[in-house]
Amino acid sequence: CDPITNIDDIHFNSKDKSIFWLNTYGTYHTKEFKQIISSTALDDFLLKLISNDKHPNKVLELDNVIFVAIKVLKTETENFDTEQMFFILTPHYLWSIQEQKGDYFEWIRERIRENKGIVRSKKTDYLLFLILESIIDNYEDTYDDISDSMTILNETSDVKPTPEFTQNVEKEKNTIITFKRAANSLRDIITKLEKTEQQKVNKKFYSELNTQVNNLINTIDFDLQELESKINMIFSIQGHRLNEVMKTLTIFSVIFIPLTFLAGIYGMNFKNIPELDTEYGYFILLGVMLIVTLVSIYLFKKKKWF
Amino acid sequence: CDPITNIDDIHFNSKDKSIFWLNTYGTYHTKEFKQIISSTALDDFLLKLISNDKHPNKVLELDNVIFVAIKVLKTETENFDTEQMFFILTPHYLWSIQEQKGDYFEWIRERIRENKGIVRSKKTDYLLFLILESIIDNYEDTYDDISDSMTILNETSDVKPTPEFTQNVEKEKNTIITFKRAANSLRDIITKLEKTEQQKVNKKFYSELNTQVNNLINTIDFDLQELESKINMIFSIQGHRLNEVMKTLTIFSVIFIPLTFLAGIYGMNFKNIPELDTEYGYFILLGVMLIVTLVSIYLFKKKKWF
Amino acid sequence: CDPITNIDDIHFNSKDKSIFWLNTYGTYHTKEFKQIISSTALDDFLLKLISNDKHPNKVLELDNVIFVAIKVLKTETENFDTEQMFFILTPHYLWSIQEQKGDYFEWIRERIRENKGIVRSKKTDYLLFLILESIIDNYEDTYDDISDSMTILNETSDVKPTPEFTQNVEKEKNTIITFKRAANSLRDIITKLEKTEQQKVNKKFYSELNTQVNNLINTIDFDLQELESKINMIFSIQGHRLNEVMKTLTIFSVIFIPLTFLAGIYGMNFKNIPELDTEYGYFILLGVMLIVTLVSIYLFKKKKWF
Amino acid sequence: CDPITNIDDIHFNSKDKSIFWLNTYGTYHTKEFKQIISSTALDDFLLKLISNDKHPNKVLELDNVIFVAIKVLKTETENFDTEQMFFILTPHYLWSIQEQKGDYFEWIRERIRENKGIVRSKKTDYLLFLILESIIDNYEDTYDDISDSMTILNETSDVKPTPEFTQNVEKEKNTIITFKRAANSLRDIITKLEKTEQQKVNKKFYSELNTQVNNLINTIDFDLQELESKINMIFSIQGHRLNEVMKTLTIFSVIFIPLTFLAGIYGMNFKNIPELDTEYGYFILLGVMLIVTLVSIYLFKKKKWF
Amino acid sequence: CDPITNIDDIHFNSKDKSIFWLNTYGTYHTKEFKQIISSTALDDFLLKLISNDKHPNKVLELDNVIFVAIKVLKTETENFDTEQMFFILTPHYLWSIQEQKGDYFEWIRERIRENKGIVRSKKTDYLLFLILESIIDNYEDTYDDISDSMTILNETSDVKPTPEFTQNVEKEKNTIITFKRAANSLRDIITKLEKTEQQKVNKKFYSELNTQVNNLINTIDFDLQELESKINMIFSIQGHRLNEVMKTLTIFSVIFIPLTFLAGIYGMNFKNIPELDTEYGYFILLGVMLIVTLVSIYLFKKKKWF
Repeated sequence: CDPITNIDDIHFNSKDKSIFWLNTYGTYHTKEFKQIISSTALDDFLLKLISNDKHPNKVLELDNVIFVAIKVLKTETENFDTEQMFFILTPHYLWSIQEQKGDYFEWIRERIRENKGIVRSKKTDYLLFLILESIIDNYEDTYDDISDSMTILNETSDVKPTPEFTQNVEKEKNTIITFKRAANSLRDIITKLEKTEQQKVNKKFYSELNTQVNNLINTIDFDLQELESKINMIFSIQGHRLNEVMKTLTIFSVIFIPLTFLAGIYGMNFKNIPELDTEYGYFILLGVMLIVTLVSIYLFKKKKWF
Repeated sequence: CDPITNIDDIHFNSKDKSIFWLNTYGTYHTKEFKQIISSTALDDFLLKLISNDKHPNKVLELDNVIFVAIKVLKTETENFDTEQMFFILTPHYLWSIQEQKGDYFEWIRERIRENKGIVRSKKTDYLLFLILESIIDNYEDTYDDISDSMTILNETSDVKPTPEFTQNVEKEKNTIITFKRAANSLRDIITKLEKTEQQKVNKKFYSELNTQVNNLINTIDFDLQELESKINMIFSIQGHRLNEVMKTLTIFSVIFIPLTFLAGIYGMNFKNIPELDTEYGYFILLGVMLIVTLVSIYLFKKKKWF
Repeated sequence: CDPITNIDDIHFNSKDKSIFWLNTYGTYHTKEFKQIISSTALDDFLLKLISNDKHPNKVLELDNVIFVAIKVLKTETENFDTEQMFFILTPHYLWSIQEQKGDYFEWIRERIRENKGIVRSKKTDYLLFLILESIIDNYEDTYDDISDSMTILNETSDVKPTPEFTQNVEKEKNTIITFKRAANSLRDIITKLEKTEQQKVNKKFYSELNTQVNNLINTIDFDLQELESKINMIFSIQGHRLNEVMKTLTIFSVIFIPLTFLAGIYGMNFKNIPELDTEYGYFILLGVMLIVTLVSIYLFKKKKWF
Repeated sequence: CDPITNIDDIHFNSKDKSIFWLNTYGTYHTKEFKQIISSTALDDFLLKLISNDKHPNKVLELDNVIFVAIKVLKTETENFDTEQMFFILTPHYLWSIQEQKGDYFEWIRERIRENKGIVRSKKTDYLLFLILESIIDNYEDTYDDISDSMTILNETSDVKPTPEFTQNVEKEKNTIITFKRAANSLRDIITKLEKTEQQKVNKKFYSELNTQVNNLINTIDFDLQELESKINMIFSIQGHRLNEVMKTLTIFSVIFIPLTFLAGIYGMNFKNIPELDTEYGYFILLGVMLIVTLVSIYLFKKKKWF
Repeated sequence: CDPITNIDDIHFNSKDKSIFWLNTYGTYHTKEFKQIISSTALDDFLLKLISNDKHPNKVLELDNVIFVAIKVLKTETENFDTEQMFFILTPHYLWSIQEQKGDYFEWIRERIRENKGIVRSKKTDYLLFLILESIIDNYEDTYDDISDSMTILNETSDVKPTPEFTQNVEKEKNTIITFKRAANSLRDIITKLEKTEQQKVNKKFYSELNTQVNNLINTIDFDLQELESKINMIFSIQGHRLNEVMKTLTIFSVIFIPLTFLAGIYGMNFKNIPELDTEYGYFILLGVMLIVTLVSIYLFKKKKWF
């Protein structure tokens, strides 16, 4: 099962029972691709598909061939940088096309060598299974990196009811939703491969991949749920704070407004205000004010305002 | 595969192995259409269908014929101006009916010429595939134009919590939802064509179209998600601003209300207010006021109000 | 295809190749119905079905017969007044039962006469198709009437944040949802007819009806979406207005509270307040007040409060 | 079709063409049940099922037998009191097991006698149809009772924005949702019976039951929708009232705050305030205050605050 | 049906008609597992599956074997501690692999002994049914423990509109949702077993398990609904309280602001204020103030503010 690197060696429909894996770099070698396709009697719809360099994740069942286009995430960078990969699957051949020369498949090859005992007796569908499994791992790793770098998702206690915080929640939500879409399209591919009617495709492999990718999507859904909770929290805190602020204002106002009014009354300059002339009027008024204050506080306490 | 322009040349059910594409302009030539349909032994339910000039997007599987009605978007204008198109598909004939004479199909023809190598050996379903692919491109281009012209969707930073802003968000949301409906009905057509049981229809073409239109719908969903986030932002900003405004009012009131009350007390005209007659009463009071103010500020600071 | 009006003429299972349409008025002639059913060897489950005069929209596949119960909307009135109709369909017979004698089917008959050329060679399923098509038209017309009479749905600009407005939005929403349910049950009927396994039912007719009723439901969904937008608008306007009101109050309070405090200070009657005895104390204070005011206004401007 | 009451008479798999209905009371006669099951060669999984006395609504397709467990609602009481019933259906036998001796099936028997003409030629599936129909009626009656007793659902006009009102809305919503779950599980049973592959089960009966129970669920959905509208109304009224209250406060404050400030100015005790010594200063100030008030009112009117 | 404990005794594909249950402890005995798998000619994909020690709940249909991985909840602890279990099912063998040696299966064995009469004639699918049933019971018990320990879910009356309360609601919601996911994945397993095409698997058992796990999920949904209601209640109470607070402030302010203004007027020091010199001016003013207050109170009463 060592990869073939010599392009001349390609006989996709050979009756030989061994399995070949052809890995080519660069999606722009259209001419060579066309030559291979026509010489090996593959479905010529492939010509049109490969000549287009932007594909969403997809699986197409052509005549005797399965065409798979997947975007692989690059884990090195922070962003969702992706690399386009094509897989062309016949019973005995797996042709993978990478956008750039890279060591991406090196560890898949290692995996193959590790699992040698198992791989020996398998067909190309098992090869594709191993590659897809490593791509799912790649998605899982990338998602772990992304969710670890999210500040709001990870700080479980402090919700700040500010627009900036809300905006960050929304930003992280959108990032996760974007990632979920990518994971969903990966699941669609696997589901389609599971349902494919081509003779040599073994459903059990794709069934296994399906549970793996569903597991990833469940993790994503859980994080989304957490962020939705934060939004509820934000509005609840805003409402609570407003209540607290207004209670403070109202308690102060309700206590002092009548007192200030009373002081205003005895600040008037009417010629004849009998109270002003009494010996202890001032002190009686202070006493009345104290009583009014105490009654107000008692009433607020009773209504459990503080 | 050059289009036929002479109406007399039509033999839909000829046993000839070549493929014909008949393109006619105008949906009002009911009489001629009827004549063609009856003379070529097509399903006479077509008569009823074509006589009706307003159709939603639809696919109907008639006896030996597939009838497709699609609204094509006109990219020249800002609005959703559409043109009705009918396609009548038999194994060897594709009859397309345009509402108005236009160069719309010119670039489809070019595409056909470009892909000549591939097209040669294909049937009418491949022709329909190319036309539908160009219509999806047309939808994608139109959507790009629409979403580029949306002011709120594109300005990522500034959310204004005004009713006008909300109204604009809702307007753009409704526009996008309307477009999404159009894209959905296009997908329904393609899904129905994929499921069609007519013998000559090749599923792989429609499967490919399906992933293309799903990709468009994913883009639309993402934009809708963005606008929903804006709505959340609006309410969050409103709540935050209200909190800020009320905090300002409350801090000012809570600081000055007791001070004003104290000033009111010593503005009273009681005959006997001992404090008024002391030498430094005024300055002592100012000192008390300063202390009250500082304590208030300290308490607010402690409660993190500012 | 002229309708039969003489009840004695009924031979539902005649081997005759012509098509009969039996139209009877009144659902209470149970005895006569039973007689007809038993004499013509129709499924006796019909007896039980017809004896019940309240049916939701439904399609039942009985032995050799299809039973359809539909509520037809009366367009004359404002409300959702409905009339119960039954259709009993065998390959050669269509038996329709109306609740009340009316000219409802007159224009269906006209349609039939119009489409004579097409109808001639058709079976009873085409007759049912025409009737169902006219019922869908009837639903569409009624919905147009209803949505035209809705005041809030049609005034696109003025959203008032009052409970009355909200109540009207909710009322119109509920009316539309009720209508949507009716349209949905109509679609269910057509879908069930499309899936029916009875030999003579032609799927293409019901496929066509399905796209028509889906189109109606899309229109309804769009209107519902519009009303949902109004609700978002209401809450956004309420929040915005509250912000405006509180801003006004806060600006006024923050500007005048310190000024009033200062005036209160110099209204005190302390024996020894040096400022009071200066020549220009009053004018200096007015100047200080002006400066405080200008600074406040400057700060508010800076914070973009107005 | 008279029910058998003698337990010894049971020969479930007799080749006799007549139909038997066995009705037993009490679910605790496990021993007798086991005896019957083993002696009549029924699937012994029934033993395990019947020995368990708490089942959710369910249908199980065993070997040659269909096992149905349904909870019947007791209409006499206010609560959701339910009675467990089991039905064991073979082509010629219907064995029903009631929890308690009751006259529940009396009116089903009456129904059977009423419909005698129809029932005669039917199999046990028709018997089960009649029983299930009466259970659906029982659900519908119970729901009518429940929804009639709901105070908030029925008072269409008065929405009070208090927590008590909200709590009542939520309570009624939860009650209805609980009922909807029961109705849904009933529908699941019927759908499962409709899909059952046992030879003698007649789909048309269950198709009819399905439309009946769907009709009930539609009614429930409509009531739920009404209650959701009330919640929207509550928040809208709260927002509106807050706006009204704050407007009142702001208008009063904005009008009186400057006036009180002016009065404060001329209440100061500065030695030299020229205005105080003028003859008509007081009246001029009153005039100025009037003008300020009128201008404020004019501005509020212009901004449509009242 | 006594479990085999001697590892040497394993002949999975023996033609013997008896049923064997092999139970092994520890997932790390990879070498022994590999030996067993290769020696008994089981699908070698099992090697890869078992060597991986972290699986989500899953069912895989391999060649002649069904592989089931389930996480069993540990009821002893408060958290969602789980133990990984594998089941490998062939027609005559059930091989269960537990992570740790424990008495977990003891009571399953008891169950088997209890149901001896029934079990005797059953295949391994019945054994798996009993194990899965006990696992569902285990989930139900754990959920009962969890929901009983939730403080907010169980206190039906007191909703506090504080952020802490909201946070607790959200926490309990997330816990329940996490549990629901576990229950859902259990249901997925059972549904997949129900749909499995392997010859010896008896659908009726899994159909029964399905209704049991659906019942559990319904209970969970009901609790989630309760918590959602609490959230609505929180916002409603916040809105109501704010209204009450602002009403109090506004009533106090509206009553006292004009009175304080009047007092301010007659506190001015204008030389010529005729009212000040009248004999009863002070008392007349007090009367005027009383009237203003009573009118305000009357107006508030009329507007139903208190």
